[in-house]
Amino acid sequence: MTTLELRPFYCPIEPAIHPDVDEIERTAVTWLDRFRFYGDARGRARVLGTNSAEFYARFAPHGCRDGLQAAVHWVYWGFAFDDVRCDAGELSADPARFLAMVGPLQRALENPWHDPSSGDPFVLALQDIGRAIAACGTPVQARRFADAHRAWLFGVAWQVANRAAGRVPTLDDYTAMRLGSSGGPPTLALLEIAMGAEVPAAELDSPAVRALTEMANLIASWDNDLHSHRKETTEDHTDQNLITVLRAAEGLSPEEALAEAYRLRDRVMARFLTVRERVASGPDASPALRAYLDCLGHAIRGNTDWALRVPRYRGYGAQPVSAGPGWAGTPSDTRQDPLPIPAIAWWWDPLETPWRRHEP
Amino acid sequence: MTTLELRPFYCPIEPAIHPDVDEIERTAVTWLDRFRFYGDARGRARVLGTNSAEFYARFAPHGCRDGLQAAVHWVYWGFAFDDVRCDAGELSADPARFLAMVGPLQRALENPWHDPSSGDPFVLALQDIGRAIAACGTPVQARRFADAHRAWLFGVAWQVANRAAGRVPTLDDYTAMRLGSSGGPPTLALLEIAMGAEVPAAELDSPAVRALTEMANLIASWDNDLHSHRKETTEDHTDQNLITVLRAAEGLSPEEALAEAYRLRDRVMARFLTVRERVASGPDASPALRAYLDCLGHAIRGNTDWALRVPRYRGYGAQPVSAGPGWAGTPSDTRQDPLPIPAIAWWWDPLETPWRRHEP
Repeated sequence: MTTLELRPFYCPIEPAIHPDVDEIERTAVTWLDRFRFYGDARGRARVLGTNSAEFYARFAPHGCRDGLQAAVHWVYWGFAFDDVRCDAGELSADPARFLAMVGPLQRALENPWHDPSSGDPFVLALQDIGRAIAACGTPVQARRFADAHRAWLFGVAWQVANRAAGRVPTLDDYTAMRLGSSGGPPTLALLEIAMGAEVPAAELDSPAVRALTEMANLIASWDNDLHSHRKETTEDHTDQNLITVLRAAEGLSPEEALAEAYRLRDRVMARFLTVRERVASGPDASPALRAYLDCLGHAIRGNTDWALRVPRYRGYGAQPVSAGPGWAGTPSDTRQDPLPIPAIAWWWDPLETPWRRHEP
Repeated sequence: MTTLELRPFYCPIEPAIHPDVDEIERTAVTWLDRFRFYGDARGRARVLGTNSAEFYARFAPHGCRDGLQAAVHWVYWGFAFDDVRCDAGELSADPARFLAMVGPLQRALENPWHDPSSGDPFVLALQDIGRAIAACGTPVQARRFADAHRAWLFGVAWQVANRAAGRVPTLDDYTAMRLGSSGGPPTLALLEIAMGAEVPAAELDSPAVRALTEMANLIASWDNDLHSHRKETTEDHTDQNLITVLRAAEGLSPEEALAEAYRLRDRVMARFLTVRERVASGPDASPALRAYLDCLGHAIRGNTDWALRVPRYRGYGAQPVSAGPGWAGTPSDTRQDPLPIPAIAWWWDPLETPWRRHEP
């Protein structure tokens, strides 16, 4: 399976990056060395090698400094936490211990001004991020981030449970699970904090914008499944990856599963572009919503721009950047009907009447 | 332990109930008989015996009919689900299976217009509730309910994990867990839907209102621990109950633990009244916020008014209503300093400056 070659990604969105990325990275390294949740020198190198500053500087290329810095800290934190406590490590197949660890952690984020009962450096660093968000964001944004953070941990708990049971989920369950377990919800909840502009609740919670947020999340998550498939094969935890799930569900060969994965993500990408254009061109769309929708696109594009360079994925396959898969001008599957995945079929509901029935 | 007698509850809030409670109950019974998630005749009797219509008619005595009806359906659903899938039943100590069951269930709620891949009657009924909420509520309210529903399932998963590991949590962890596992978040998220008035995000997510919501949730949850202690002792799943936790943590006798439980809940009750008075009297408080704060009080009072009559708790102890513990005019502990529980100590942060630092 390690011979699978990535194909060009369909993503007609220009690359962009925040001009202060280097300074933000330097500040983040100082922060990392204050909390030291990375463990030893090898752990430190691994965390720095996530290039999290670059990652989020691509997501929010026009972000405000304080909000972007807080977001970057969380991304470093999230990659480190993921590697040690979620995707691998002794808790990664033990849901009882995983839940007893993340329950107090989540509560500490919701309540970042009081010392938690544990001295876990992950908890202390997360509280620092919570305080930074409260300082530069609004209470609404802080609440949104906390809810999104819980949605992520809920998804990871499901993933840990599947691993404990030796269960490869169906494509439908995998899709629902991956919308949380990828870390997409907190990562995207940080967008408006990094932008320094609160999106009005009636807009952000509208069905169309909720669907767009989920689409951007899933495209980036599936793309990461493609990028990380080699890394995970090396480390032997590929049990839950889009390729593996497609092979198990539909009896596909590795090459067929790869092609099918691209067809699925390209169809979601095309739907994302259609719905985003419709919502952004609405006469009443607020400036904060328009900026948010822009950032969702930067997130999809930036995620792959980052993945093609980052040691986290690249180091394992030793493929030079110049030989990357590049970009496709058209989708590999042009069908516009809903994907046959019940968990997300509603993204293709007609944009007019049916989505209006959700309105007050 | 079954000889423990309840004491009077400190709750200086008048009782109230919606005048349409009987009609709402009749409509709910028809609904229950349509989805039949209760199983057999014994299950049906048990669900009807939760008196869920009365329960929520006390929470929202001035509610609008459609919203209150949807809320009542969820309460029946929640009690049935709790009994069969959370507090007891074969999943109640198996986090791997529990998570694989609630993951798709939660997603089906978030996406109630498309058939789920499973025919589980609990899932189908929950989707009906989701559609009812979308029809009578706003997209913001529907999103709030879905997030609160996930917070509940996350808390229950933690409880299931503790049971699987044979672990009695610390008081701090139990308090954090119980804020979710009690079902308080979705129950209280239904208040504004039952009232038919969306609370503006900047108010609902403000630290003071967030604290008030959590306080009402915890008081009712701890009170239910007191009411249900007898029932749970009979059914042998008292491992995680305020009384049990206090006994384990502090080596108290049953009688001492009961007295301590009342001291804790009375101190939270007093803090709730102080903060609520301050917030409700603010010159800028919206009518929807004032109605919501009223309902939080009705929830605390109504929860115990209901508990003292309901067969769910009373049937096991056979204590007649007339011999109930009644109400106390003053708290059993008048100390006003924060409880020594890190997870909730922030509720006692000074109301002026420190809570203002959370503002944008």
